[in-house]
Amino acid sequence: MDFTRPEAELLTRILHWRRDVRSFRTEPIDEAVIERLRAAMDLAPSVGNARPWRVLRVETPALRRRVRDEFARCNRAAAEAYDGDRQTAYLRLKLAGLDAAPVQLAVFCVTNPTEGHGLGRQTMPETLRQSTAMAVHTLWLAARAENIGLGMVSILDPGTMAHVLAVPADWEFAAYLCLGHPEATDDTPLLHRAGWQENTPTTWDER
Amino acid sequence: MDFTRPEAELLTRILHWRRDVRSFRTEPIDEAVIERLRAAMDLAPSVGNARPWRVLRVETPALRRRVRDEFARCNRAAAEAYDGDRQTAYLRLKLAGLDAAPVQLAVFCVTNPTEGHGLGRQTMPETLRQSTAMAVHTLWLAARAENIGLGMVSILDPGTMAHVLAVPADWEFAAYLCLGHPEATDDTPLLHRAGWQENTPTTWDER
Repeated sequence: MDFTRPEAELLTRILHWRRDVRSFRTEPIDEAVIERLRAAMDLAPSVGNARPWRVLRVETPALRRRVRDEFARCNRAAAEAYDGDRQTAYLRLKLAGLDAAPVQLAVFCVTNPTEGHGLGRQTMPETLRQSTAMAVHTLWLAARAENIGLGMVSILDPGTMAHVLAVPADWEFAAYLCLGHPEATDDTPLLHRAGWQENTPTTWDER
Repeated sequence: MDFTRPEAELLTRILHWRRDVRSFRTEPIDEAVIERLRAAMDLAPSVGNARPWRVLRVETPALRRRVRDEFARCNRAAAEAYDGDRQTAYLRLKLAGLDAAPVQLAVFCVTNPTEGHGLGRQTMPETLRQSTAMAVHTLWLAARAENIGLGMVSILDPGTMAHVLAVPADWEFAAYLCLGHPEATDDTPLLHRAGWQENTPTTWDER
């Protein structure tokens, strides 16, 4: 099974146009698309094949409101860590699409799954969280290729999120994801465009 | 910028044929391909646009040998955690391609980057590690699309790796990656094929 250069270039284009989306149209996502996105997550890498990610689709209006309130609380606290112009700039940023996103997912990581029988994580328990992050990224790219925007919200308190969503004790909060049709598409990160943090290339040093 | 259904299906195919590769041919990877893989990592998501991943390309034979020795040590210790048939099965698995992989990368995560000005990680410092995991996954997919295999080695002690590679104190070891032309391609995880851990689908529960 070999891929061609144009196929590799298409992947680059998908990577290039994936953004953290915070401005959504409210129209629903087709359920067939949602099912394809769910299935895409099954293709994520996972150390020991343990697949430690757990996903809750949050539909209850009261729960969504509690998540919005928690975001507002954490975002106010985060703003207080900055002074002057930097604080003004922070407060101008739109950092979540919680009000409009038609699909909202809470992602957790099981900290001691039986699946995988512990393989690959004795020296690095961190691999479970890495696998969960890669599953989120898999969903992100699959969504982009379906022309669905995804925004990852991390300005939330993990303990509060676990409490609000009443998850089992060994589920650790990883991220809250907003999905929907984006208001616009862009090939440049919002934080670069808004002047918060420029893109910086990574170098590979040699040893 | 909209993608078509066939383009979305191509991404699914790349996801489907990405594997953790442990058997490599020793022939080198074209440097132009390596440069494209490096550039692909720049397209990974990162909370606060902080891009906290740091990559060392390990070429020095003595360093590669120390990594192999450390893997052997950790793998022996890991095997001792299993009994009977499970231990026999563990010892039969090939869990790394360190002997043959022509390109080897050590990936670290900076725990307190100035880039991003702390945005998005006050309640969840974990987002830096998540970004680093997503950067590894970006590289993994880009490699697959270039018909290059990648194996992620986590049966290593993070402290020893930081010491062996003499990295700055705020670099945290994330993963050691083996890259090269794979001996074979497969659409099924090795751990499923070898009977260690079956693939399990993930469900999205509703709240």
